[in-house]
Amino acid sequence: MISKKMQKLVENNSVIREMFEEGKRLEKIYGKENVFDFSLGNPSVPAPKEVNESIIKIIKEEDSNFVHGYMSNSGYEDVREKIANSINKKFSTNFKFNNIIMTVGAASGLNIVLKSILNPEDEVIVFAPYFSEYNNYIQNYDGIVKVIKPNLKDFMPNLEEFEKSINEKTKAVLINTPNNPTGVIYPEEIIIKLTDIMKEKESKFNNPIYLISDEPYRELVYENITVPYVTKYYDNSMIVYSYSKSLSLPGERIGYVVIPDELENSQEMIDAVTIANRIIGSVNAPSLMQRVIANCLDVNVDIESYNKNRNLLYKILLENNFKCIKPQGAFYIFVKSPIPDEKEFCKTAKKYNLLFVPASSFGCPGYVRIAYCVPYEMIKKSEESFSKLAKEYKM
Amino acid sequence: MISKKMQKLVENNSVIREMFEEGKRLEKIYGKENVFDFSLGNPSVPAPKEVNESIIKIIKEEDSNFVHGYMSNSGYEDVREKIANSINKKFSTNFKFNNIIMTVGAASGLNIVLKSILNPEDEVIVFAPYFSEYNNYIQNYDGIVKVIKPNLKDFMPNLEEFEKSINEKTKAVLINTPNNPTGVIYPEEIIIKLTDIMKEKESKFNNPIYLISDEPYRELVYENITVPYVTKYYDNSMIVYSYSKSLSLPGERIGYVVIPDELENSQEMIDAVTIANRIIGSVNAPSLMQRVIANCLDVNVDIESYNKNRNLLYKILLENNFKCIKPQGAFYIFVKSPIPDEKEFCKTAKKYNLLFVPASSFGCPGYVRIAYCVPYEMIKKSEESFSKLAKEYKM
Repeated sequence: MISKKMQKLVENNSVIREMFEEGKRLEKIYGKENVFDFSLGNPSVPAPKEVNESIIKIIKEEDSNFVHGYMSNSGYEDVREKIANSINKKFSTNFKFNNIIMTVGAASGLNIVLKSILNPEDEVIVFAPYFSEYNNYIQNYDGIVKVIKPNLKDFMPNLEEFEKSINEKTKAVLINTPNNPTGVIYPEEIIIKLTDIMKEKESKFNNPIYLISDEPYRELVYENITVPYVTKYYDNSMIVYSYSKSLSLPGERIGYVVIPDELENSQEMIDAVTIANRIIGSVNAPSLMQRVIANCLDVNVDIESYNKNRNLLYKILLENNFKCIKPQGAFYIFVKSPIPDEKEFCKTAKKYNLLFVPASSFGCPGYVRIAYCVPYEMIKKSEESFSKLAKEYKM
Repeated sequence: MISKKMQKLVENNSVIREMFEEGKRLEKIYGKENVFDFSLGNPSVPAPKEVNESIIKIIKEEDSNFVHGYMSNSGYEDVREKIANSINKKFSTNFKFNNIIMTVGAASGLNIVLKSILNPEDEVIVFAPYFSEYNNYIQNYDGIVKVIKPNLKDFMPNLEEFEKSINEKTKAVLINTPNNPTGVIYPEEIIIKLTDIMKEKESKFNNPIYLISDEPYRELVYENITVPYVTKYYDNSMIVYSYSKSLSLPGERIGYVVIPDELENSQEMIDAVTIANRIIGSVNAPSLMQRVIANCLDVNVDIESYNKNRNLLYKILLENNFKCIKPQGAFYIFVKSPIPDEKEFCKTAKKYNLLFVPASSFGCPGYVRIAYCVPYEMIKKSEESFSKLAKEYKM
């Protein structure tokens, strides 16, 4: 007697659970140290020491009712001001505390933004491959997910198809760069082209089309590549940020939404997103963690650890003739399956205790996602398995 | 260009903000210490010392990736098991970890339960006076709020009207005891009558009707009055609990949902609620706080402080001939307005720097809610204002 919407989700969920249980089964047979689980996007690098130091300092020094109490639904004003100042310093923007709304991670941030803008049947455009939870977030508010086919050459957005796909029902475009699952970063040139198309279509349909930028991986960037700050290119932009990866705090559920003054009727949008934050039940972002991250705005996890993992795994893949592009950010490598049915390929990989995610679930069949947020030693140890897997496919 | 649903909410919100700003305005004129703000349900008693001790111990001793990392969407298994055992010990129930789903406070708990059960146009019955956010939570999933008129004699549920109101569209009944705003507790006798009616209607309509018990005030009880545990009286029950008041952690957003095995297709419901927790964006309840409350299951805030406040405020109200019943739990007194228009009464009260919440917003016009989760000294100091207010109405 659960709701009709949830019935479908519960059915699909059993497939995911089977995958998870398969991993557990392998671990039981071969021992945890001999199973190479590259399927999870769970940070392997610990939070910087400043995080835990800050927790202890706040608990010891500040008033308990203040630290653990209610504040405005959009978060502590001083925390929001510090975040605004930190963004302004990094990106030469001009935000004030009022432009920042603290959220229960990026997942809640996306939900409250989508709840604030979507009427039933409104369309949201996403570029494949994309994080499949977007489907749920959009459908939560009876929106329609419009998927732009993947550009298999370099995984940059397919702008030709994009331009044709925008219509009077298009309410938003959702991008994620650095990208899960491909690890690519959209350069400024692409952001300019993408937003130029959106500006033209806004004029044509005389409706705002929101650019929602989901940025949990913003700080996980290699070789100093720049990730453009989209509010500088397009007025109707909203940024959804999370500290899950930048400070390795995924379980703590802390992030924020940026709504710039340049956005049409921005105060109304700020009010709507704040109310949505309250009524979906978040009420406010966790209070202690708000205060903690305000003390850690100039701190990042040890990105060099992820970089070492990236370089080693990329080398192993190339040496075994797998096809992939070297990721510029995040902690995933997106690899072409040697056979069209990548689910079958994942099954074969399991024979060598290698666990990948088939990319059908990212809207890009024929590929797999390999997450390298794992111990370096595990990657080293997995080399033989990759080599055996490649041999099986005569690569 | 915000969604139609949100437009109404943003308009209403400005009224609430005006009230809040009126309080700030009074504080500026008369000084914070001379404004008697009884309008907020924000705990005034600090978290027990065990909470902060536990935070420091966990941060110092446990692995950072474990404490701040992802776990199952329903929470850490060991935390859920400890909670299940603690409930079993207190109420002679028989829950296992699987029956407990950790949530971002009770507000999220209610949202994910309602999302899991409601199809559009399904009805949820609430008893006035009731917490007005229930309207939003139910309407989030296109459900219809069916309000049972208040029983002004003792604020127990009006069971005659209730019985008549249940029909084939009734999906759930939502109760809140100890109650916000009245402070009453439903005794066992009432729970038996209420659930007997529900059982009869379940048979009649051949459909489960869920009893959702919202219990953020369960531990805030005076004079050792018993709060019945509803799963013992009715199979299709779900409990929504929060540590916001019992441990004074409202900002931390930590609570849980109980789904008993006796509930029809309970595993399907557990799966649905867990998925809903994930897809509304909570993903999981804040990780550190899950581990903290597991260490504090036998601890409560200093309830005697609230009791002292209750006794003093009740005495002041009686001495000034205000009509109210003595609350048995929570931290509110529900007072009859001396004039039918309680909003007008609240305006008059403001002349004496007394801030109350008009109970129209709780579905019970003609009454006001006075929250006594305030410093004891403030109540003492407010006595003269209450006396002046009573005189103005010749009470």
